[in-house]
Amino acid sequence: MNAPQHAHPTPVIAPRPMPAEMVDALRARFGDRCSTAMAVRELHGRDESPFDVPPPDAVVYCESNQDVIDAVRLADRFAVPVIPYGVGSSLEGHLLAVQGGLSLDLSRMNRILEINAEDLTVTVQAGVTRTRLNEELRHAGLFFPIDPGADASIGGMTATRASGTNAVRYGTMRENVLALGVVSASGEWVRTGTRARKSSAGYDLTRLFVGSEGTLGVMTEITLKLYPLPEAVSAAICHFPSVDAAVQTTIAIIQMGVPIARCELLDGRTVAAVNRHDRLSLREQPMLLMEFHGSPAGVAEQARTVQDIAAELGGESFEWATTPEERTRLWTARHHAYFAALQTRPGCRCVTTDTCVPISRLAEAIGESVAEADAAGLPYFLVGHVGDGNFHIGYLIDPTQPEERVLAETLSAQLVGRSLRLGGTCTGEHGIGLHKMGFLLDEAGPAAVGLMRAVKQALDPKNIMNPGKIFEA
Amino acid sequence: MNAPQHAHPTPVIAPRPMPAEMVDALRARFGDRCSTAMAVRELHGRDESPFDVPPPDAVVYCESNQDVIDAVRLADRFAVPVIPYGVGSSLEGHLLAVQGGLSLDLSRMNRILEINAEDLTVTVQAGVTRTRLNEELRHAGLFFPIDPGADASIGGMTATRASGTNAVRYGTMRENVLALGVVSASGEWVRTGTRARKSSAGYDLTRLFVGSEGTLGVMTEITLKLYPLPEAVSAAICHFPSVDAAVQTTIAIIQMGVPIARCELLDGRTVAAVNRHDRLSLREQPMLLMEFHGSPAGVAEQARTVQDIAAELGGESFEWATTPEERTRLWTARHHAYFAALQTRPGCRCVTTDTCVPISRLAEAIGESVAEADAAGLPYFLVGHVGDGNFHIGYLIDPTQPEERVLAETLSAQLVGRSLRLGGTCTGEHGIGLHKMGFLLDEAGPAAVGLMRAVKQALDPKNIMNPGKIFEA
Repeated sequence: MNAPQHAHPTPVIAPRPMPAEMVDALRARFGDRCSTAMAVRELHGRDESPFDVPPPDAVVYCESNQDVIDAVRLADRFAVPVIPYGVGSSLEGHLLAVQGGLSLDLSRMNRILEINAEDLTVTVQAGVTRTRLNEELRHAGLFFPIDPGADASIGGMTATRASGTNAVRYGTMRENVLALGVVSASGEWVRTGTRARKSSAGYDLTRLFVGSEGTLGVMTEITLKLYPLPEAVSAAICHFPSVDAAVQTTIAIIQMGVPIARCELLDGRTVAAVNRHDRLSLREQPMLLMEFHGSPAGVAEQARTVQDIAAELGGESFEWATTPEERTRLWTARHHAYFAALQTRPGCRCVTTDTCVPISRLAEAIGESVAEADAAGLPYFLVGHVGDGNFHIGYLIDPTQPEERVLAETLSAQLVGRSLRLGGTCTGEHGIGLHKMGFLLDEAGPAAVGLMRAVKQALDPKNIMNPGKIFEA
Repeated sequence: MNAPQHAHPTPVIAPRPMPAEMVDALRARFGDRCSTAMAVRELHGRDESPFDVPPPDAVVYCESNQDVIDAVRLADRFAVPVIPYGVGSSLEGHLLAVQGGLSLDLSRMNRILEINAEDLTVTVQAGVTRTRLNEELRHAGLFFPIDPGADASIGGMTATRASGTNAVRYGTMRENVLALGVVSASGEWVRTGTRARKSSAGYDLTRLFVGSEGTLGVMTEITLKLYPLPEAVSAAICHFPSVDAAVQTTIAIIQMGVPIARCELLDGRTVAAVNRHDRLSLREQPMLLMEFHGSPAGVAEQARTVQDIAAELGGESFEWATTPEERTRLWTARHHAYFAALQTRPGCRCVTTDTCVPISRLAEAIGESVAEADAAGLPYFLVGHVGDGNFHIGYLIDPTQPEERVLAETLSAQLVGRSLRLGGTCTGEHGIGLHKMGFLLDEAGPAAVGLMRAVKQALDPKNIMNPGKIFEA
């Protein structure tokens, strides 16, 4: 087969109306913090996905666990959907009210509850954003490495099992969430673990909730692993004659076990977009943007190894950024790649892909997908957390041209089909949301999805927790 | 409170008889590979736990996924318990047929299905043991680090979320299982993931099954992460004037972020037992047994840092073991500590503890527990994967003296209560099994255990998968 069987790019919209009695009850409990104003609802009814869906019926701004508990209990009583909301940076439609319901805005739950520097752990409320967290940690000589680009909330990052640029060394939210405080679908407060580094105490509820996209309960408190700020940090850019040469270099770095902290690919046209957007003058060629963490001797050793590998594969002009300011400038530019690419085609929207394959198949996965995109003639950008085998091709479509969306979805489906055949996954870090429900079926198969559904039904029998995401209905 | 509320050391035995019709059906399907001989049943009806429970009603030796599927379907039809069996090294009664039923012996499913050296992954059948796996990997320059001491099966290690000596650097089975092939309780074949290093594709079924102790399905295929054999390895012993000084050294090593590969504590009496058992002449004082992995320069750097820390805390006579033979001798001795300790009291049985606390609370957790054990006058041993905050006190009881068992269980309950108060878990690596069901309730609370039970009921509605473990009934 060339494309997945279940590709399904259009969300199913089936609102369950919120009874007036529930609106009254929310107003009585939350006063001004409950809003049904259209502007507020619309703000909470969109994210970075390319879908247009009617907004939620009401929004409640939560300030405490008790607020969440009370809101969920009302939703349970009236069997109305609940959609947790952080900062709205989802790329897959996680926040869209496809069945109507109540948006629970957690952005005011933004307290850092406990830093345990000596244990390298921190407990935060779900609304804390990753840059805020790192600002607070810096004085303790610590950091939280997971960095999906957007200044997402820790709650949202947990819900999508996010990762980003540092995951090649530090892992993803899967590896870095130690425990959660969750409000279950029936409005019970549950702690899913302790601050111990490891445990064999029953089912791994923590990992069950990480990546559950708000469909099993509302995560309000998150205990994370921290890391000491590295003694030495050094970033480097290396240019390559082709995307393939950059990918082959990455594969060799990973296979040699170099503990590289970041290893990011940008293709030539994305470098050009970034240059324009961030006023940089990078060579407009395929590029690896890398970072090394460790002791001064360790960083020097890693860098030497990587330079040798790159040189053999045609990598040229290693450029170093050793001051924090230079590094920040480069990484900010990398994080702007998505928006920089959008600006190359004014008014466009983006159909983003997010496959992740075993590293040995990365050159094949990227090479064929690039050739296919080039042949199709649709503008696109290519960036990748290539150290993990994860890359994003974003097809830039004119939303007024329906055939462009069809073409982009066809390319996306072919790219996913290829990645699955190569032993990979349809989503490395963005989640299933609305867009990839069909791909999940292709990837996991009906039996595995059946187990997921059984878990969902067991923990949320009324299907009120962010319904219509991950699975249909 | 000084002790947990739900301590519950005695297994509830409630056999569900296997109908003769099922025995006939098993014989028809499996022939000689189905046994009801008492000697075979008894062999499959015990493990390293201190409990005496009647054996399973029958044993089937499985050789393929289809064997497992067919056996589980029969068990489903007759609503009879199924207990997966690897090598019998459980310490917590996981293999005991408290409700009777069928023991599925997976030891013949011992094929290494696929080594993907370039991706650092391997897929094995559940019956492969960890030493066998590492023998097969050595020629590829790779290894699988998880090392619980016993030569356990990979299936058993997955079922208990095992860890052991290398976890401080490489993580536990939680971090190192990439995907599973599972036979569900209804006899369906399910793949829980791909070989991609990361994924956000739906619920984390892999992590749900890891640590589920055979209660959700039978794991028959396991895809693991591998690591390149380190370029340089060096092991060292350091003696300390007190257990506390050794623990304080460990805490400082971890807090400084030294990427130590192994950091094991033995108290003086355990060193003495090991000396006798393995004919060594180690100083019979509290000791840290450490190992460093990396490049030659990296290993030297780590060792220097650790020596400086240890010296400040009274650590003496750093002794190095750099040849593979010396290292193997030391680690073999460490792995014999449990059996060496048992031999210090002929005829004894062992009540083992397995708590794990945040590293900052480790000195308090160990110090108070040791003082309590000393005051009680019961012989015991103390070893610990202290880099993780995980330690084992094993109380050596005379099984003919019921009051010794009561005393040991009281000490164990007090130790668990203390660890929970310090933010830890009742089990770092052995699992809940029969022995710690009460402690799980204390640790996780009824709401979290309620979610676990709901998951269990959803995936195993007839309660046939290793029933009576993790939760009662």
